[in-house]
Amino acid sequence: MSLSPYWLRDNCPCAECRDPRTGQKLFQITDLPDGLAVTERSEAEGHLTVLWSDGHRSRYATEWFEQAAEGDGRTEEGKRLWVAADFARGLPEADWSAYLADPAERVAVLGAVRRSGFAVLRGVPVAEGEVLAVARSFGYVRETNYGELFDVRVEPQANNLAFTNVAIAPHTDNPYRDPVPTLQLLHCLRNEAEGGDSGLVDGFKAAALLREESPEDFAVLTRTPVPFAFRDRGTDLRAEVPLIGVDALGRIREVRFNNRSIGTLRGLATAELDAFYAAYRRFAAITLRPELQLEFRLSPGDCLIFDNVRLLHARTAFEQQGGRHLQGCYADLDTLASTLAVLERRLAVLDTLAGLFEGEGAGEYLGEDVTMAQHMLQAGALAEADGAPEHLVAASLLHDVGHFGGSGLELMRGNDNRHSHTGADWLSRHFGPEVTEPIRLHVAAKRYLCAVEPAYRAGLSEASEYTLRVQGGPMSPAEAAEFAARPGAADAVTVRRWDDRAKDSAARTPSFEHFRPLLGRLLGLDG
Amino acid sequence: MSLSPYWLRDNCPCAECRDPRTGQKLFQITDLPDGLAVTERSEAEGHLTVLWSDGHRSRYATEWFEQAAEGDGRTEEGKRLWVAADFARGLPEADWSAYLADPAERVAVLGAVRRSGFAVLRGVPVAEGEVLAVARSFGYVRETNYGELFDVRVEPQANNLAFTNVAIAPHTDNPYRDPVPTLQLLHCLRNEAEGGDSGLVDGFKAAALLREESPEDFAVLTRTPVPFAFRDRGTDLRAEVPLIGVDALGRIREVRFNNRSIGTLRGLATAELDAFYAAYRRFAAITLRPELQLEFRLSPGDCLIFDNVRLLHARTAFEQQGGRHLQGCYADLDTLASTLAVLERRLAVLDTLAGLFEGEGAGEYLGEDVTMAQHMLQAGALAEADGAPEHLVAASLLHDVGHFGGSGLELMRGNDNRHSHTGADWLSRHFGPEVTEPIRLHVAAKRYLCAVEPAYRAGLSEASEYTLRVQGGPMSPAEAAEFAARPGAADAVTVRRWDDRAKDSAARTPSFEHFRPLLGRLLGLDG
Repeated sequence: MSLSPYWLRDNCPCAECRDPRTGQKLFQITDLPDGLAVTERSEAEGHLTVLWSDGHRSRYATEWFEQAAEGDGRTEEGKRLWVAADFARGLPEADWSAYLADPAERVAVLGAVRRSGFAVLRGVPVAEGEVLAVARSFGYVRETNYGELFDVRVEPQANNLAFTNVAIAPHTDNPYRDPVPTLQLLHCLRNEAEGGDSGLVDGFKAAALLREESPEDFAVLTRTPVPFAFRDRGTDLRAEVPLIGVDALGRIREVRFNNRSIGTLRGLATAELDAFYAAYRRFAAITLRPELQLEFRLSPGDCLIFDNVRLLHARTAFEQQGGRHLQGCYADLDTLASTLAVLERRLAVLDTLAGLFEGEGAGEYLGEDVTMAQHMLQAGALAEADGAPEHLVAASLLHDVGHFGGSGLELMRGNDNRHSHTGADWLSRHFGPEVTEPIRLHVAAKRYLCAVEPAYRAGLSEASEYTLRVQGGPMSPAEAAEFAARPGAADAVTVRRWDDRAKDSAARTPSFEHFRPLLGRLLGLDG
Repeated sequence: MSLSPYWLRDNCPCAECRDPRTGQKLFQITDLPDGLAVTERSEAEGHLTVLWSDGHRSRYATEWFEQAAEGDGRTEEGKRLWVAADFARGLPEADWSAYLADPAERVAVLGAVRRSGFAVLRGVPVAEGEVLAVARSFGYVRETNYGELFDVRVEPQANNLAFTNVAIAPHTDNPYRDPVPTLQLLHCLRNEAEGGDSGLVDGFKAAALLREESPEDFAVLTRTPVPFAFRDRGTDLRAEVPLIGVDALGRIREVRFNNRSIGTLRGLATAELDAFYAAYRRFAAITLRPELQLEFRLSPGDCLIFDNVRLLHARTAFEQQGGRHLQGCYADLDTLASTLAVLERRLAVLDTLAGLFEGEGAGEYLGEDVTMAQHMLQAGALAEADGAPEHLVAASLLHDVGHFGGSGLELMRGNDNRHSHTGADWLSRHFGPEVTEPIRLHVAAKRYLCAVEPAYRAGLSEASEYTLRVQGGPMSPAEAAEFAARPGAADAVTVRRWDDRAKDSAARTPSFEHFRPLLGRLLGLDG
């Protein structure tokens, strides 16, 4: 395997190169010497170890090399391109109350926006300003010259055709902004008018069709900056960007399409203008193909969320006096994707924990009469029975997760596995310090209690007495005083007492599933 | 002159094609027929008139063809690239109170951010949250996972190295966002630490140097998507974008540079990785050249505003306990540019009005004994003397601007020049309806008063009696009733009475400059 040296070194995972907490690199690329080379490399125990010409040593898990590129999901590759018939069986939608209550519903809705470009929430309270609550359920509102939210209804002195009753052909919003808002929300408060139906078109699909049918037209649209502009008394916005934005590898990444706000292209030869307009007309015609038009009607309480750099939205004309009122706001895709990834990660950690309790956890617990899973479940149940706050129930339940992965055996072989730290570090990617810090200190709490309560040490199990020595024995008086002063020390001592009692082979032990809702709440999964 | 037909037609300025109020196009590009062609063209009186094959007629001012491309000022072409020595005589800066009070100071500061990428405001109140007021003076705050504002100081459990005391090499912020915040503000509340100085580097200059010295390295960085990432317990942000972003014409438009948050490039061959890392190291080395480092120290009350997709910012290390506290927030360049353009437009309209009063306004006023300027200045002065609110003083002062441009002659030749509408339309690009609508109605108010007050008509000047007939004569009773019901009719009648009295050749008349501050306030120029 030939490896690029600077690439490999830039990815060194050691704590000197990369902050263990933030994952951020601690060196600059220019800190590496010229002519950096691998001096020695060896593979063993699933790791590649590299000695560098500057004396640094790096260690990479072999499986790290196999990981696939993640991407950011923003180009056509991360999307499911669609035509209207793909939604013949229904739109991606959810009930607002279910979305709030059930993280799986949130994953489904946000995932649909990410992959298909839109979703509809039903039953959002029909009240002004609620659209902001929807945006804040996954991100941040992007304020613009239209305000934090805007009202889409007939206005007497409209500064934008959106605020009249005319039909609006498929378009994206605010193309004259850079950065353009990447998400739009439209919440229907009233729709009694004849007409005023909604339409969506997948702009990525339309662009892909153009590329397929007329590659040169596609190329013209990707390479011609278009001067979008919007001006009113207090605004003078301009952005010069192509109708179809592709990334450095030519993948479709952004569509801006809005005839109303295209200004005057200048500085191009007549033949170039002819070519641009021919391509633009061809692309526009594709966006109007009936098979691409997804048409539906928003009813009061519906909130449409859609990707404003991909989907084109439209509305039919409606009667002037018919009573149609939507409220909209803008937000951004990056935060939506982050919220989705965190939700998925948190749901996955619950499944991972469940798997550990059911699998490895059924194994022997360091010479005790209970399995590892029984021990931890009992500790959680004892905390719960004592009326402990949820974070301490969780800390008790999870205090020994650092033993998983077979490292408990190390401890019994006489090597301190630092399982309290291993467990706390892993859990701290997901849980707050109120859960992880008592876990981090639960071994220290044993050494502390042995120092300050002679009766406590006398009550230790035989295995625990053995591991105490491996872990450093009772604290000195100075160590004990220092420990007691640490934040979270009292919680750790409390958890420790449940830990010590949770070795009863006769006790009835609840299953992991009993604790899943509590863990979900601590992970912020209840909305 | 060969003209591209669809381009020409897409720019037809007629009211059928383009909403006069919003300037937005009223047709779709697909509404134009295939094979559209010019049937007839003729040039006369500074206009090109075109008859189209579909029967439409368009009329273009000849000078419109001469206008230069505006651009959005976001690529290197719209910038002044710099090295540190360019600021040897001082940074672009202003006092916060002067910035608030004087629109010319605001233009200077915002213009510096636009062209040079940064400016410093001095004397911003040393209080938490004031940085938000600075951002809101020209735009909107962009909320992120760091909050609406963030504190840059040493934090015990920092999720980002910014919140520690280590040195930070030149970088841009939040490269793992798309859209990335395009502006950053840093407001110094405290800086007593040894160290903790600030540095800025012009990333566009560094990129231009790379292109000059090593075009292939430049090309590699523009075409390699880099996976930026940031993760903490509640965040999982990713953006895959090149270090140097160029527009469709190859102009530098965006720089993202942050070694801390570059993830693992995958899917590239070893040779490609070698090429990327060689280019990246060369670019990084350029950003560290001493001649590019602009170094300064922020003192309490200083607020640095800078372009986060162009400038790299840095700070030196500082003592852990030294007391350094900045507050920051993000905002966006598009709105800053809009605010700047509107300010410039408003300052320009005052100069245009001053020029009209001094130049053309010195000419004859339709057969009266006073000049046009004297008449209008007198009307404004009468309103002021009567204690009228500012918007009515302005309406009186400006009521006849529609006569400028020589169109008053038309009226005296017996053709209604609709000067009230012409004036109101032009002014409404800048002034609110409280100023423009009484102007729009001031001719109607004369016809109304003639209908309802016989004594009023008897008092009209000879010239005014003549133009009354051209303008349609006194209103019928039905017209008068309809007029009286219109919003703003009462204000128009009030303005009309000042108008009628303002024809005294013996009166002392203030100059236009007397009214400039009042007009500035109505234009929102007093901050």
